Amino acid sequence: MIIGGGFGGLRAARSLARHPVRVTLIDRKNHHTFQPLLYQVATAGLSPGDIAAPIRWILRGHPNVEVLLGEVVDFDLAARVVKLADAEITYDYLIVAAGATHSYFGHNEWEPLAPGLKTVEDAIEIRRRVLLAFELAERQAAQGGGQIPLNFVVIGGGPTGVELAGTLAEIARRVLTREFLSIDPKSTRILLLEGGARILPAYPDDLSRSAEAQLRRLGVDVETSAMVTRIEPDAVYVGETRLPAAVILWAAGVAASPLGRKLGAPVDRAGRVLVQPDLSHPAHPEVFVIGDLAAFEDAKGQPLPGLAPVAMQQGRRVAMNIGRELGGQPREAFRYLDRGSLATIGRAAAVAQFGKIHLSGFVAWLAWLFIHILFLIGFRNRLIVMIQWAWSYFTYERGARLITGDTRLPSWTGRSRQALDKEKGDSPPASNPAAD
Amino acid sequence: MIIGGGFGGLRAARSLARHPVRVTLIDRKNHHTFQPLLYQVATAGLSPGDIAAPIRWILRGHPNVEVLLGEVVDFDLAARVVKLADAEITYDYLIVAAGATHSYFGHNEWEPLAPGLKTVEDAIEIRRRVLLAFELAERQAAQGGGQIPLNFVVIGGGPTGVELAGTLAEIARRVLTREFLSIDPKSTRILLLEGGARILPAYPDDLSRSAEAQLRRLGVDVETSAMVTRIEPDAVYVGETRLPAAVILWAAGVAASPLGRKLGAPVDRAGRVLVQPDLSHPAHPEVFVIGDLAAFEDAKGQPLPGLAPVAMQQGRRVAMNIGRELGGQPREAFRYLDRGSLATIGRAAAVAQFGKIHLSGFVAWLAWLFIHILFLIGFRNRLIVMIQWAWSYFTYERGARLITGDTRLPSWTGRSRQALDKEKGDSPPASNPAAD
Repeated sequence: MIIGGGFGGLRAARSLARHPVRVTLIDRKNHHTFQPLLYQVATAGLSPGDIAAPIRWILRGHPNVEVLLGEVVDFDLAARVVKLADAEITYDYLIVAAGATHSYFGHNEWEPLAPGLKTVEDAIEIRRRVLLAFELAERQAAQGGGQIPLNFVVIGGGPTGVELAGTLAEIARRVLTREFLSIDPKSTRILLLEGGARILPAYPDDLSRSAEAQLRRLGVDVETSAMVTRIEPDAVYVGETRLPAAVILWAAGVAASPLGRKLGAPVDRAGRVLVQPDLSHPAHPEVFVIGDLAAFEDAKGQPLPGLAPVAMQQGRRVAMNIGRELGGQPREAFRYLDRGSLATIGRAAAVAQFGKIHLSGFVAWLAWLFIHILFLIGFRNRLIVMIQWAWSYFTYERGARLITGDTRLPSWTGRSRQALDKEKGDSPPASNPAAD
Repeated sequence: MIIGGGFGGLRAARSLARHPVRVTLIDRKNHHTFQPLLYQVATAGLSPGDIAAPIRWILRGHPNVEVLLGEVVDFDLAARVVKLADAEITYDYLIVAAGATHSYFGHNEWEPLAPGLKTVEDAIEIRRRVLLAFELAERQAAQGGGQIPLNFVVIGGGPTGVELAGTLAEIARRVLTREFLSIDPKSTRILLLEGGARILPAYPDDLSRSAEAQLRRLGVDVETSAMVTRIEPDAVYVGETRLPAAVILWAAGVAASPLGRKLGAPVDRAGRVLVQPDLSHPAHPEVFVIGDLAAFEDAKGQPLPGLAPVAMQQGRRVAMNIGRELGGQPREAFRYLDRGSLATIGRAAAVAQFGKIHLSGFVAWLAWLFIHILFLIGFRNRLIVMIQWAWSYFTYERGARLITGDTRLPSWTGRSRQALDKEKGDSPPASNPAAD
């Protein structure tokens, strides 16, 4: 039984499928999301269908793998039972690969004001807010209200924040320039706030500095050691300083899935399960935890980062150990083989680290491009994404600029909306949180 | 001032852009939707971004055309003012191209049970219900509940109903076959209900019969003279007969946008404005109504059908007349040039009429394919769509099988859901209409 169809769960399922076992994979979504490209959906470069594929389609070649749509709510490890909202399923071996979600560091009230980017739905919501901000500004300017400041604030200088900020700058400065009559999208200000001393803290110092320089070249303002103390619908506070913001995006914190705490094992501060060297539960050797939900320390005592390669290698190791055990052999401990890491920043801008080789700029970006297209699941998606990217690269156009859902003036920009209503003397339309 | 960025409004804007006028186009959405391909999104063949393009991107080459996102709620024709929810805009000439919506013939309570297909959001909702129905059936069967009957009922035998039914049959019989372990998608029953004597009533009799034969060959059950009297969450009633249904889709009725009735001119039964020969408002010659919102009778006294070519030719005629008037010339009456019509049924199945030439089957389908790709707005979309179709044609795969939004057991199948809850002895999870 595998919980979660992310990189770790899928790899475990595929590896287990070779053994004489019956595998059931459960996920809340019907699709696997290629998370490294989610920011492309949030910034209207790709459609959700380009970076997500049905889990059942991915695993269609394996007649011993059953894929079920369902949400796990609890466990009874003693009885070897997984509890769904409306059913219970028993297992012999359990692999929990439920991943991570956003953490607002105790400020959950910030979530509606500053959405994070973990799911396809998150990406669509961010896309909606970004595109609506430009539409709202155009409306106000066309009606004689002058151009309201278009400030986009991205909180968190990790890979996701850097990608979002870089791509937003590209949209404002290159993509939308010719399409607005009343505002100048180039006057958009993109601000990246990082609480620590440097962006991309998981990378070596020289690559952090290079990334910051590349971001500035793209037109992003970077502020480090900037702790966010408060978020309002149209502003972010750093210490006492109020920064007006049309759109606020959250890329600062990651917390393990709440399922981790339900396993009854010790967890770290982020809620990740402290696993044994073979990735098993300390009290239940038949239960494994992998991917973003597992806290696994490498030889130096450093916890492994929440990256796809880590999850995939762990999924494979667990599947192999189950196979070994069924064959009467002992389990082997997990060892992470670090093949390097890459972070993209924007058009022809990226940083990459392969052991002692540090790359940045166009070369790093090319490496990023090819590796991501290569790993994109499903050949068809790969082809479509390649064409879309080639097209965008040469034309500066983005193919998925749809606002779906509520298209009225953004309700989260409380102040601008009320101001506009007051100006016009009209009562505001009934709010519609459902469509948000 | 143009209201609506559909086929009529866009064509009017493009034609007017050549004249020395300032054009403002207002739409509730930021994107033009290529409605003839919307059924492909509803059936997971294409992504929303493939068939929709931002209106401001489509019109980007025209510096005298301003595109605004906003919802028109009323008019003051005497003062030449268009009222938005939170603003008023004045005009010299007004072109109302607000289109049509579903009509449930006085049974608006059927809408949540049997969604129609007019917008990208509609298409995503239909896709969600169709895909979830298979997932629910698999869940129940995997948990030992046996296979629940998978009946899909499409109400309305016009072009949209025929397209939906034909494509659903293809999905059930070809696309999903290898991916489910516990159910057999081929056992899905697709039922097309038409209230009149034959499907595709706007087409000649021989093509109607051919379409019905082609649908049956694809595995669709067609029932004509079948008046729906009642809809429940999991059943459709034809007369007194109860037909169980896992998913119910509505393609039966079209009503003009409610904006039509706010123009103060006589309307027909469907709410369409009875326009003058030059498409103008009977009392306000500076106001025009075009497209699905206009009731225009041809030389034989027949109202023109709600087709893209009608709307586009009308948009062009109105723009030309405004240009003529500005140049001191008299207006000309509108005349519709019928270049023929096509309806697709499924893979290699379609009907087409070009004057006296009636085509059906593969030839009609090829004609449909090329004409639709040709007219798809934006070269990039065209290329992507062509590749997706070629891929789907040869592999029987569909590229956008995403369930977004609520992925829990479908709340609209009230009975099956309760039955399942009862079986398992669990209380149902809190319903979440917001995510629907």
